[in-house]
Amino acid sequence: MSVAPPRPLRPHALVRTLLLVAIATHPRLAQAAPAAASAAPFTDAQLEEARSLRERALIDDTGYETLRSLTREVGPRSAGSPGDARAVEWALARLRALGLKNVHAEPVTVPHWIRGNCSVEVVSPWPQPLVAVALGGSVATPEAGLEAEVVPVTNIDELARIDSTRIAGRIVFYTGRMQRAEDGSGYGRAVTVRGRGAAEAARRGAIGVIIRSVGTDRNRLAHTGGMRNEPGDKLIPALAISNPDADLLEDQLASGQRVRLRMSNSSSWADSARSANVIGEIPGRERPREVVVLGAHLDSWDLGQGAHDDGAGVAIMSAAAKLIGEARSKPRRTVRVVLFANEEFGLSGARTYARDHAGEAASHVMGMESDLGAFAPLGLHSRVPPDRLAAIRAMQSVLAPLGVQYRGNDASGDADVGQIAALGVPVCDLDTDASEYFDWHHTANDTFDKVDPALVRRNVACYAALAWLAADYAPGFGRAPGTR
Amino acid sequence: MSVAPPRPLRPHALVRTLLLVAIATHPRLAQAAPAAASAAPFTDAQLEEARSLRERALIDDTGYETLRSLTREVGPRSAGSPGDARAVEWALARLRALGLKNVHAEPVTVPHWIRGNCSVEVVSPWPQPLVAVALGGSVATPEAGLEAEVVPVTNIDELARIDSTRIAGRIVFYTGRMQRAEDGSGYGRAVTVRGRGAAEAARRGAIGVIIRSVGTDRNRLAHTGGMRNEPGDKLIPALAISNPDADLLEDQLASGQRVRLRMSNSSSWADSARSANVIGEIPGRERPREVVVLGAHLDSWDLGQGAHDDGAGVAIMSAAAKLIGEARSKPRRTVRVVLFANEEFGLSGARTYARDHAGEAASHVMGMESDLGAFAPLGLHSRVPPDRLAAIRAMQSVLAPLGVQYRGNDASGDADVGQIAALGVPVCDLDTDASEYFDWHHTANDTFDKVDPALVRRNVACYAALAWLAADYAPGFGRAPGTR
Repeated sequence: MSVAPPRPLRPHALVRTLLLVAIATHPRLAQAAPAAASAAPFTDAQLEEARSLRERALIDDTGYETLRSLTREVGPRSAGSPGDARAVEWALARLRALGLKNVHAEPVTVPHWIRGNCSVEVVSPWPQPLVAVALGGSVATPEAGLEAEVVPVTNIDELARIDSTRIAGRIVFYTGRMQRAEDGSGYGRAVTVRGRGAAEAARRGAIGVIIRSVGTDRNRLAHTGGMRNEPGDKLIPALAISNPDADLLEDQLASGQRVRLRMSNSSSWADSARSANVIGEIPGRERPREVVVLGAHLDSWDLGQGAHDDGAGVAIMSAAAKLIGEARSKPRRTVRVVLFANEEFGLSGARTYARDHAGEAASHVMGMESDLGAFAPLGLHSRVPPDRLAAIRAMQSVLAPLGVQYRGNDASGDADVGQIAALGVPVCDLDTDASEYFDWHHTANDTFDKVDPALVRRNVACYAALAWLAADYAPGFGRAPGTR
Repeated sequence: MSVAPPRPLRPHALVRTLLLVAIATHPRLAQAAPAAASAAPFTDAQLEEARSLRERALIDDTGYETLRSLTREVGPRSAGSPGDARAVEWALARLRALGLKNVHAEPVTVPHWIRGNCSVEVVSPWPQPLVAVALGGSVATPEAGLEAEVVPVTNIDELARIDSTRIAGRIVFYTGRMQRAEDGSGYGRAVTVRGRGAAEAARRGAIGVIIRSVGTDRNRLAHTGGMRNEPGDKLIPALAISNPDADLLEDQLASGQRVRLRMSNSSSWADSARSANVIGEIPGRERPREVVVLGAHLDSWDLGQGAHDDGAGVAIMSAAAKLIGEARSKPRRTVRVVLFANEEFGLSGARTYARDHAGEAASHVMGMESDLGAFAPLGLHSRVPPDRLAAIRAMQSVLAPLGVQYRGNDASGDADVGQIAALGVPVCDLDTDASEYFDWHHTANDTFDKVDPALVRRNVACYAALAWLAADYAPGFGRAPGTR
């Protein structure tokens, strides 16, 4: 039971990587799986029910209309904001309207960072305004802003090789570009400067940081995203500029002249706020206390409507549960939709859920998460004991007409479900085509018009069929290999 | 000598339409053309020189590098702004560096409107911020902004059919969408609300106007553009919202609930400012006082870098002249590049040029203008006496390998060259593929990265060959039919 060879880094690759490392180095790695499943994991009737769900989902716009409702009636909903509170109310009402049961909110304390205004302009050699946004968590500049010469570096590795006297008192500009890829693998490589670039530059005496947006588009819309500050970090203002603005800044630097920037930012931290995980269920017909979790996150960044990130996931999982609730036969176990609070700013909701439900980890039969927008489903990963792989392959076979291949027993859950995966809960990850996702991700452009209803339907079809089969699979999936 | 049947409306269609009407109704419409040209308008040597210019242009990046320089070193340059003054200095230096002669600036007085901050938000039923920009020339709101119910109308015609009591005290929202088209014809139909929508709404008692952006993209970047206020108009604040924001607003209205908006704008008018037309020449070898004008406009809107609009034209025409200056044989007449001041806000530069050079109209042999970005050349229109059409067809034949077809003797010049066309100067219009132009036009997204160097080269090749032949065409083109 070894850890699968690394796949290309996906979004939230850091979370995944950390989990894989934890698993690979765990002393009880070779722990035996529970009793093996039978050779034919599902009956014909079970598979027929799942196929029927799939077909109904492909002609049902509950997901798309749920996303329309969320983006129209709530829109931006960053942790702790008024929109966040409205999103919780919206989600409670929506899950009830979709026929889910036991709909309730579980309180979560979230950090509350408030975006202010920010600006960046080239002062010399050729004055021009640049389009910028503050990175999530950035401290403010002095009110008058700050002005300094720019030092371009590709990434943190290159920063470390530069004489610190060239950094001190300057603004560091991280120039690395994100590569477009179907598997989103460019994100993991590019995003490190967003998380740690400011702290690393500050350690060397920089007074501010500018990063090229972590995104694949060429719009004058900068990409925000959370920083990963750690205790002891010196905090300096950190902004992202749009890709065309990064081109311009590089072009001015290429002239060989010194380039000076002025930057200002007025963001601030408020007290922690209350938010909530919103939960609703389709109760199981035989073992209602055993659950399959369908996860997505309810919060979004503040710049857009959080349509792909992660309104799509909220809509897809809610619609999948609704269709399961309308199935001719309810599954044996409960299908539980968990709409997590504050994924973007530190996984507060997922950590709270994992903490509060740790005692019920063994009754969490399977977890799945949708947090990569509404794009074409391509591949299924699992993390289950080897003797349950036949069930997984049978589940994948129901998705094969949608183009979903089986890709290996190396899943880890995405950011949120990863928190319960770490407790030993088996997980499935559905890869979708991430080629376009990072054009919109964390920008003002993440709006409803960017979402294709047909692709919402295909995702709903996948999760409805997967969740129904997982919840009805009599033997269950035991504990994930390599976890406690 | 009749006016050609109307073509689909192109950008600046209003200017064109007004000219065609003026021509068609002019009492001296049937005026005889000057002496007819010979049957073979050009010698083999002339055509070979033009083909050679075309081929050199196709492997020369003078145009693209000129555009890089303008966008990098000047960027935004709206009439009367500091960028406008820098653009004039840049242009003088650049034309000299490209080897043009008689490089000079001719003063132009321009209006000076200063963009302030603006905001729009839905107050109810579902509060959300909308991305907005002020239309050029918009007056400010009261400092606290204004708030009112929204009345959606498709266009001015629909507004006129609505009971005015429904308009009074409200904010009118023009919902009409621009259609994408190769010939840009959607622009002429959509742009009327930008020009006259506020004035027409104000006449009926509206207190503010919001328009869906006149553009074909789906980015959260609104499209600005000039209004056409007239003496006696009541002035109310007028903003454009991005297409996704217009979708959201329509979606909230579709709920059947009353929608209230809050809008604010702090733009203002300053005193008229000084700008300049920048002119440079490749002097003719035989008749240097007779000129072929290559026109483009130097000003841009303030939100982007004016890359396609009209940095591309500036770069294309400058590079074409530079290549003509390096030809083995200079043409008989002068090729004059005119970079017009303030096209965007009322054609100040073109009107000033036409006024100051009216006495030399007869020595203006031909005018051409590039003001539709750097896209694939597709078609050539002319407006010359019929007995000069053989020369035009020979000129077009040199462009045929680039995909340029002859489309008719119905040219009018674009907005700027149209001013001298109205004096009887023959003109050629080069149609380019406008499918993508209105994705970027008048937005922050009009930046250098959107421009394809190969398409700049193809445009330079067209204008270099056309201008060389026009300037070397011994008989000249007389006066345009239907003009004084």
